[in-house]
Order: sequence, then structure tokens, then C-alpha cells
Amino acid sequence: MSDPTRSALTDADRAYELDRAHVFHSWSAQGQIDPMVVTKAEGSYVWDGDGNRLLDFTSQLVFTNLGHQHPRIVAAIQEQAATLCTVAPAYVNGARSEAARLIASHTPGDLNRIFFTNGGADANEHAIRMARLHTGRQKVLSTYRSYHGGTHLAVNVTGDPRRWPNDNGSSGTVHFFGPFLYRSAFAATTEEEECQRALAHLEQVIALEGPGTIAAVILESIPGTAGVMIPPPGYLQGVRELCDRHGIVLIADEVMAGFGRAGRWFAIEHGDVAPDLLTFAKGVNSGYVPLGGVAINDAVYRTFEDRVYPGGLTYSGHPLACAAAVATIQTMEDDGIVQHAAALGDDVFGPRLADLAARHECIGEVRGTGAFWAIELVSDRETREPLAPYGGSSPAMAALIGACTRRGLLPFANVNRIHVVPPLTISAAEAVEGLDVLDAALSEIGARQ
Amino acid sequence: MSDPTRSALTDADRAYELDRAHVFHSWSAQGQIDPMVVTKAEGSYVWDGDGNRLLDFTSQLVFTNLGHQHPRIVAAIQEQAATLCTVAPAYVNGARSEAARLIASHTPGDLNRIFFTNGGADANEHAIRMARLHTGRQKVLSTYRSYHGGTHLAVNVTGDPRRWPNDNGSSGTVHFFGPFLYRSAFAATTEEEECQRALAHLEQVIALEGPGTIAAVILESIPGTAGVMIPPPGYLQGVRELCDRHGIVLIADEVMAGFGRAGRWFAIEHGDVAPDLLTFAKGVNSGYVPLGGVAINDAVYRTFEDRVYPGGLTYSGHPLACAAAVATIQTMEDDGIVQHAAALGDDVFGPRLADLAARHECIGEVRGTGAFWAIELVSDRETREPLAPYGGSSPAMAALIGACTRRGLLPFANVNRIHVVPPLTISAAEAVEGLDVLDAALSEIGARQ
Ligand SMILES: Cc1ncc(COP(=O)(O)O)c(C=O)c1O
Ligand SMILES: Cc1ncc(COP(=O)(O)O)c(C=O)c1O
Repeated sequence: MSDPTRSALTDADRAYELDRAHVFHSWSAQGQIDPMVVTKAEGSYVWDGDGNRLLDFTSQLVFTNLGHQHPRIVAAIQEQAATLCTVAPAYVNGARSEAARLIASHTPGDLNRIFFTNGGADANEHAIRMARLHTGRQKVLSTYRSYHGGTHLAVNVTGDPRRWPNDNGSSGTVHFFGPFLYRSAFAATTEEEECQRALAHLEQVIALEGPGTIAAVILESIPGTAGVMIPPPGYLQGVRELCDRHGIVLIADEVMAGFGRAGRWFAIEHGDVAPDLLTFAKGVNSGYVPLGGVAINDAVYRTFEDRVYPGGLTYSGHPLACAAAVATIQTMEDDGIVQHAAALGDDVFGPRLADLAARHECIGEVRGTGAFWAIELVSDRETREPLAPYGGSSPAMAALIGACTRRGLLPFANVNRIHVVPPLTISAAEAVEGLDVLDAALSEIGARQ
Repeated sequence: MSDPTRSALTDADRAYELDRAHVFHSWSAQGQIDPMVVTKAEGSYVWDGDGNRLLDFTSQLVFTNLGHQHPRIVAAIQEQAATLCTVAPAYVNGARSEAARLIASHTPGDLNRIFFTNGGADANEHAIRMARLHTGRQKVLSTYRSYHGGTHLAVNVTGDPRRWPNDNGSSGTVHFFGPFLYRSAFAATTEEEECQRALAHLEQVIALEGPGTIAAVILESIPGTAGVMIPPPGYLQGVRELCDRHGIVLIADEVMAGFGRAGRWFAIEHGDVAPDLLTFAKGVNSGYVPLGGVAINDAVYRTFEDRVYPGGLTYSGHPLACAAAVATIQTMEDDGIVQHAAALGDDVFGPRLADLAARHECIGEVRGTGAFWAIELVSDRETREPLAPYGGSSPAMAALIGACTRRGLLPFANVNRIHVVPPLTISAAEAVEGLDVLDAALSEIGARQ
């Protein structure tokens, strides 16, 4: 009874039992899951219910950007909790003011005002509302192969299969194709061609949908969950120009790509443009307390200067969440986290993933930047047949995930891809450790096929 | 420089300045607000930027049910922060499991499974999705004079003017009239008549909308923001029967009314029925960390046992938020908070508000239960002309709010009403102190008219 390991195991068993009895899980058939218990986490590692240590190459859902239990964020939460856990959004609160200032100091362009939400989905919902009221138009254009959140409107601008069961055709959204050379929708063979054709496609969609009916184009600056598809040079600028030409609000969803993940404060900096609205969550405070938001440019802000913005939420600008954001951003500044993430991409992930691709037949492509990478797995390099069908899974993918986990690596898997999305604080040595596990796991499934 | 008052004031000034420069506020014309700074809060009191203490008769937005800075919740947050701030929703976590167990132990009927969200709006969004997929139908019936949240679908089931600028007629929602004798939609003169006619009205709406097209009826068990309108005896049972008769999912929104506010764990217990889905937020953890959720009955759960539930969110079941919920619920159990709230209603608010109504000409009606009361203010008792027009404000209301604040009371005002919604932990003496301020403020504006 006094054996601490034993009592931890008992705790894990009880947690598991109560979970199966009472917790309803996201995106799941509740009777068909067997969730892993997490009892402990620190830095780049998590521990499962049996006490096994796993290197976290997922940042959970790509949000613990400063790793687990970062002492500065923990201390900031504890201090804010001791001082003032919460006040209503109508009041002024120091933590909220400071978080807004810090975020605005890093956003591109004149994105000077911050509307705080609880997460990414509601950030996108409110950004779309702002765009609709600012333009007086209803329609929203978004890309296939995208994810924008789980609430009704957010999941309907989403361009992955999670939209399907939620689409009753009434959300006022239209999907277009973004650039993705490896599976080009335009029969392109070079990045330049892909860029030109993707822009021509968007131009046609706008023309044929009616420019005067379109409130917003929303896109992930780098589409994340759908496959870390780095836009070719010039694409984001081209979209910006199309939006400007037609008075369309450009919304950049930086929920996953923002706050250093892509080796820049915001991924859209790679394209050297500023959106009108930028949505964020996850990395803003490493997910230690639920927080999201919309950064708003001066033009959109002015629309709501003398006119009521008809939206809000009880926990907008929650002090505890904002205090965690302040600590996260200050740590990122002080410790050069964004530079570290960029260097990880240039010096470790870029070259080493290219090496894996050269040695493993089942890798169709690797792509990414910073600490934001995808390995596209195929059953046939020529036909590029994915290792799991769109929106599904496969025995080969399950085997790969199992091979990683058994070797002490927690992998991020989506359809036929493994994403390499560790904390931005991961050391080069830990990164190499994880890549070596991936190498071995890929060899294991390669040998089996 | 070393005077602590001075430095607190400087902090408040800086917070204010940064707020005006960078914070975008909910439900506001940004250039027309002059928000109050809150520097400190404890128990039933908050302090403004000038160091004035105010008795909090609002629980902020009716969520700090255990008052400000409750030591048990603060300690639980600090401990969980030190242990494990966050894990992804796919894993099992002890705090999440325990919170789900505790919530399910208090919900009525067989609401045994908990899907966690970040707040009330997304709880309602997901409850509606569950109902739609469970029934295979699209339409949602909700009441006028209701509030269900700020995201697109939630604000469209809402039945107050905040819906208007967000309603593009495509959300699949239909509004009906709930019972509200004081402003009866049915020309009723008794509670019994109001109940019968409101049920007959709903029956007709269901028949004429087509029962087979209706996925859900969603209603607040006691409509809160729209005026704390206690349903007459029999109404909730009648709605339950109509839903059963037509295979319609009954969703009880207990975001504001739940967790002791109405002198019961859940307000729907007053009606002695169980809904199929129950949504909660606010009181579940006193709002110390953003948290909401849906409690799910066995029938709806079974729909998603072998079929994927197509919804989710990054912070579902956030450990820090769940740890705060565990501490809140345990405190409520140990300290008899629900009983205290009920007694406050019976012994203090009920009789003393009736006394105010007897003495102030501008009070048309008082109604409520537990720590959940509304004072309906009128410019004419005969015509029941509200003291501010529907959805608006008025000089008289502004004067009343000012008179309260000047006397050290933070009032909750909505249109022509003052709601009395203090923390459930307020002492009888503090409650009386607040009511005395209200009394004096009402005299002041009465004298002016
Ligand atoms: C790009 C993007 N947008 C929005 C969201 C939704 O965020 P949340 O789950 O916090 O609602 C996500 C979540 O993965 C995301 O990756
Ligand atoms: C009854 C009810 N439902 C839903 C909500 C929305 O909750 P949130 O602001 O957390 O999204 C509220 C908020 O006041 C509410 O009172």
C-alpha cells in the first residue's frame, strides 16, 4: 500500500475505469476506443498508466509548444490563481491587458486588437462573424484539406471528412483547392506551376461565386492537420491581392501554425503578408489553460467602434488563461524559442527527414518547416497511393503507430501521415532520439510489407 | 514610488490603458465603453481600480457560484498545475475522470456520460449535434426570451435580440413562446392557465412544424438572462411528454441555472423530470477555469457507441478545468451549498424582495428561487410598460445602476431588470446589506421620476 508505484497504478486503473464509465470522447465511437492513461508529463515526455515513458512527438494536439509542465507557465498560473482567478469580460483586468499587448506586439501588419475566446473553433466562428458584418456579405470561402474547429460553423468551413456528417448545406461555405503539389488538383509539376494554377483557380471560384457575395477567405497559413502543406512562394501574396481586389476579408487561421510552430511567430510571415483577421489558440499559452482569440486589424476594428459587435462569451479574456499566455510569450521571447524552432527545422528535421525519405520506400514525401513536419506515407511511390485511404486508417498505419509506441515514441498520426510536431523546446538530441525510433519503426513495417 | 496604493493605482491605470489599446470586448461598440478595472476580489466582494469595494450581486456573469478566490478551488488549481496542467482529450486523465463521475452523480435520470467543452455555447452546439444525429432530423425548437451562447448555431437558437444580427435564416431553428405569466403570450391570468396554454402552443408548433422534422427542443430549465422566469408547475413535465410522444430530444440548458443556483443541483429538478441531454458550464467550477459540457443519457450515448461522434475540441476535459470542477463540487457537497442557496431564497430573497416590491412603485414583479432572482422594473404598474425597451436601456435604468454602484453594490442589469444573483456562498447578512442598497437606490430613482 505504501509502494508509490503501486498506488500510481491503482490511480491509473481507477482513472481508466471512471473514464470508460463517464467520459465521452471527441471524434470517437465510444465503445471502440481503449484510451491510454497519462499520469505524468514533463518537458518532452509523457508517462502512461503502466509507468512507461514516451517521447512526445505530438505536443498532444500540437499545442504544448513549450513542452509539459514548463516551470514559468506553472508558476504564472499558480500566482494568478492566488491573486484573481477570474473576472467577467466586461471589466479591465491586468493579465488580459498584458496578454493582448504581447500578442499584438507579435502579430503582423496592423492586427492591433485582440478578441479572446476559449479555443480555436470559437475564434474562427467570431472571425467569420466579424468578416460578415464588416463586408455585409455572407459567403465564406475555405480550402479542402483544412481543419477549422468542431462547432457547427467552424466544422462546416473545415475541408476534411469531419465536416461530412455535419454538413446540412446551409452554412454559406464554399470550398476551393489550395496548393498541394504532391497531390496537385491542377496537374502541376512544379511549385511555380502549382502556385499559379492554384491562384488562377481561386480567381475563377471568386468570379463564378460572385465577388460581391463573398465575406471572407479563410485558410490556415500552413494547413496543419491535413498535412503540413507549405504554400509555394507567392501563393499567400496572391490570395492577399485577390482579397484586396474584391473587398474580401482574409482570415488566417494560425491556431496550429502560429506562435513559433513554423519557425516564425506566425506562419503567414513566410508569405510576407498580413491578413485582416488572424485566429489563434494552442501555442498562445501552450494549452495550459483553454484560450484562443482573434487578432483584428484597424479597418475591421473601426466597423465595431460605434456599432455593437454582436458576439461574446462568458470566459472571453479569462485572467488565468491570459496569465499563462503572458508567461508563455515572455518565455518565448527570453529563451529564443522561435529561433530554436527554426533551427530545429533547418538543422535537424529537414536534413534527417530527407534522409529517412531516401531510405524508406514507403515515404512518398516529407515536408515542413520549424517544428512542423509531415511524412506522407504511400504503398506505392509511383502511383502515390496513400498508405491509408482518405479519412480512414489501415493495418499498415496501425502497425507503424504501434511500432513507435512500443519503442517509446508518441507519434502524431493522421490518415496516411505521421506528423513530426514535438514541443518547440525539444533539444536536438531528443529530436534525434525520436527520429531514430521513427527510422526503426519504418524499417519494421517496411520489412513486413 | 514605494506607496503600495499608488503602485496598485498605477497598475490599474496601465491595465486600463492597454485594455483600451488592445482588448476587443464582447457584445460592445468598442469606442463607446468605459470598462471598470477589477484589481482584487474575495468572497462576495470585488475592488475597482480606485480601491472601492463592491458587493458582487452578479457573480460576474452568474458564474462565480462559490464566490471569489475560494481557497479550496484555488488550492486545487495550484496543485493540478504543479502535477499536470494538460493532456489531449484522447487520453485518460484522473482529474477528468473524477469530474465526470462527480457531475454524473448529481445529474438527474440516466445522464451518465459527460462530454466536456470549454463553455456554454459549445456545450449547446454539441448537444444539438448529438440530437440531430440521434434522431436523423435537423430542426431545433427553442424559446423566445432565452440565451444559449455566442457561436453561430448557439446564438441562432437564442431567443433574445443578440440573435438578430446573426440570423441569416439558415440555422434550422424555430422559436416558440415559453410560459411567462407577467407578460403572457397567451392572455393567461393564472399560472395554471399560462402552463396549459403554453403547452398547447408548443403542441401546435410541433404539429405544424412536423414532428418528424424536429430533432430537439432546447430550453433553459429556468430562463436566466432573459428574466429568471420560473416555469409554472407542470410545464417541464408537459414538455417532456410532448418530446417523448414525438421522439424529440429534450435538451435542458443548465449553464446558468445549474449547480445550485436555483436551490437544487439542477433547476430541472423543480419540474421533477430528466432531460435527454443537459448542458452546463459556469457553476460547474465557478468559472475559475473555462469549462462546460453536455451530460448525455444512455439512449443518446448508445447512438455513438459504435458510430463515431463527429465532434470534438482540443481542450475537451482539460485537466486544470476538471480539477477546479472536482474541488467545486466537493465543496458544494461538504458545505451544503445547495441547501444554503435554497434557504437564502426562502428566508432572505423571497420575503425581502416581496417587501421591496410592496414599497417601490417601479417594481412590477419579483420572481425567483434560491440565489436566482429578477426584479422586473416598470414605468407604469398598470400597463406594465418596461423601464427600458426590449433589447435596450434607458436613463432610468442607467440611474439605478449608478445609484447601486455609488453605494457599493455591483448590480446585474438586463434591459428593464435587475437580477439578484450573488455567489451561493453569500451570507444572509451580506445579502441583506445588498438588498438595503437596492432599496435605497430604488428610492433614489423613484424620487426622481
Ligand atoms: C488550424 C486549426 N484551426 C482550428 C482548430 C480548432 O481549435 P479548437 O480545437 O481549440 O477548437 C484547430 C484544432 O486542431 C486547428 O488545428
Ligand atoms: C443559459 C445559458 N446558456 C449558454 C450560455 C453561454 O455560455 P458561454 O458564454 O460560456 O458560451 C449562457 C451564458 O450566459 C447561458 O446563460
